[in-house]
Amino acid sequence: MEQQRTELSALGEFTLIKHLTQYFLPKNEGTIRDAGDDAAVMQPMEGKQLVMTTDMLVEGVHFDLMYTPLKHLGYKSVVVNLSDICAMNATPTQFTVGLAVSNKYSVEALEELYSGILAACDAYGVDMVGGDTTTIPTGCVISITAIGYANKEDIALRSTVKEGDLLVVSGDLGGAYMGLQVLEREKEVFKSAPTAQPSLENYDYILARQLKPEARLDIVQLLAKLEVKPTAMIDISDGLSSEILHLAEESECTFAIYEDKLPIAPETRDAAKEHNIDPTTCALNGGEDYELLFTVSQNDFEKIKGNPNLSIIGHATEKAGENLLMTIGGGSVKLSAQGWKTL
Amino acid sequence: MEQQRTELSALGEFTLIKHLTQYFLPKNEGTIRDAGDDAAVMQPMEGKQLVMTTDMLVEGVHFDLMYTPLKHLGYKSVVVNLSDICAMNATPTQFTVGLAVSNKYSVEALEELYSGILAACDAYGVDMVGGDTTTIPTGCVISITAIGYANKEDIALRSTVKEGDLLVVSGDLGGAYMGLQVLEREKEVFKSAPTAQPSLENYDYILARQLKPEARLDIVQLLAKLEVKPTAMIDISDGLSSEILHLAEESECTFAIYEDKLPIAPETRDAAKEHNIDPTTCALNGGEDYELLFTVSQNDFEKIKGNPNLSIIGHATEKAGENLLMTIGGGSVKLSAQGWKTL
Repeated sequence: MEQQRTELSALGEFTLIKHLTQYFLPKNEGTIRDAGDDAAVMQPMEGKQLVMTTDMLVEGVHFDLMYTPLKHLGYKSVVVNLSDICAMNATPTQFTVGLAVSNKYSVEALEELYSGILAACDAYGVDMVGGDTTTIPTGCVISITAIGYANKEDIALRSTVKEGDLLVVSGDLGGAYMGLQVLEREKEVFKSAPTAQPSLENYDYILARQLKPEARLDIVQLLAKLEVKPTAMIDISDGLSSEILHLAEESECTFAIYEDKLPIAPETRDAAKEHNIDPTTCALNGGEDYELLFTVSQNDFEKIKGNPNLSIIGHATEKAGENLLMTIGGGSVKLSAQGWKTL
Repeated sequence: MEQQRTELSALGEFTLIKHLTQYFLPKNEGTIRDAGDDAAVMQPMEGKQLVMTTDMLVEGVHFDLMYTPLKHLGYKSVVVNLSDICAMNATPTQFTVGLAVSNKYSVEALEELYSGILAACDAYGVDMVGGDTTTIPTGCVISITAIGYANKEDIALRSTVKEGDLLVVSGDLGGAYMGLQVLEREKEVFKSAPTAQPSLENYDYILARQLKPEARLDIVQLLAKLEVKPTAMIDISDGLSSEILHLAEESECTFAIYEDKLPIAPETRDAAKEHNIDPTTCALNGGEDYELLFTVSQNDFEKIKGNPNLSIIGHATEKAGENLLMTIGGGSVKLSAQGWKTL
């Protein structure tokens, strides 16, 4: 079956934007006017503070269209921003989308992309309130800016860890990284033998972690329900080690974490073994898990212990020390930011 | 004298961002935490509504580095967003910057770009509150999202023109377009004879209109001072005709404008003649003037007449009609959106 291809130039900017955004209906009562004017108009949430973040995804740097479905890309591009809002212990409400695409992209391709953006709106109860669409000589850049709200006293910065605080991570780690390894492997197979079927069976979990990450708004809500105020928080986009070093630097403290406490899914462990990668390395340095990493007072231990969504992986130590991983073998190694990406 | 060139890879993302943003100090009391966390934290202005807009500038589409100084580019990339905030009759307060650059750009080049962004912060009293910096295989994309505030009753949409309203434009028109023509001409001269000196003398005004546009925040403030509430407003980015058609479509009305009322600077007129372009065509279809186009009730005529910053160029007519330009010769022609850019 032949796929229809409509050139972007067939519609022109304004018609295209109306076409792509026709199914977006504001859900948020604070959204007064979304697209169609010089700017969106919103009613700020009364008595709360506003948080705002921007993330860009660039073709050839952050995503590879060879194995990234456009719908997933649209979803992920929203989610990575919502994750940053959640990492402030805030609730995301609206976002804008800046999209620069080359004429390689058809109208149908952008429909796919926007269907993913719409799916993220539905999943998180947020509204797309405008943006900008433009051409670019080659490739694609998606720049999303999200806003959200929190009570002043609930906002969790990176710089407010206190000595003795427990270090907690949501969900599990390393899955997105292993998903990427599987996709890269199958891409190489495909390049050398284009008729071969990709063998992606049994990798559902880690592929979803890579291709369809989620922002842990549920954890923000869970913490509120448990009446636990994180003393500091960050989301894990570049890998656990890297984010721990950020918290340590911003808060002028150090951390000790325990290898045997790192949450790693069985599927991630299996794939890591298959690729001859140490699962602990995946958990420490694999990026894009978009889990929340936060500290809580020891007084909150009883409220969070045993919660299947939360793992206490270590604690904040005095500043003079090093950031250490206590290994299963009983030793300790200095944490380094191998997941740290150059620009 | 040899210019220093430091590769972006020499610094890495986090060090680079710290380096580039070191001179940015928040001026706005609503800015609580700018860069350095997962998201910026701001205190919304009490009792006001929030407006938000995104604009992207793409190398090779919106700017040509051959004649665009990077400092001007940084300034302009902020200003085009602030202009959209002003077009809501609102006051801009903060913005984020998403920047994707190839390794063609050096640290020194980005310093220039950021010095322009900083100059815009100083000129408009707004704060850069974060963003994202990333690599891109080729070129450069700047995506800025700005926010601002206005009293609910002051916000001016595009869709609220009333029949009989006066159509008003700030400043003068066509200058940015003629500035671009001069730059393009000199670029061609340079390409055919690289040792020739560009002849840019006597073009200061129109070159500044193109390279260093301003957002008309002063007009928003003037209208408040005059106690004139625009019934509708838009900024002129794609050309007067195109913006009039937007107002007409969104408000379900039509306009009649008068050729002899169009504000055109002498420098623009001179350059247009030199290039054998009709000055009226420049005013109607030349883009990037970033002036404000708005409607006011006839009752406000006395308050705005004779103001050197404002020109009454026409009025809103009943919907059944066409959007017309009444020519100096006494005829009338239908307005069309020739300034309308395809994607």
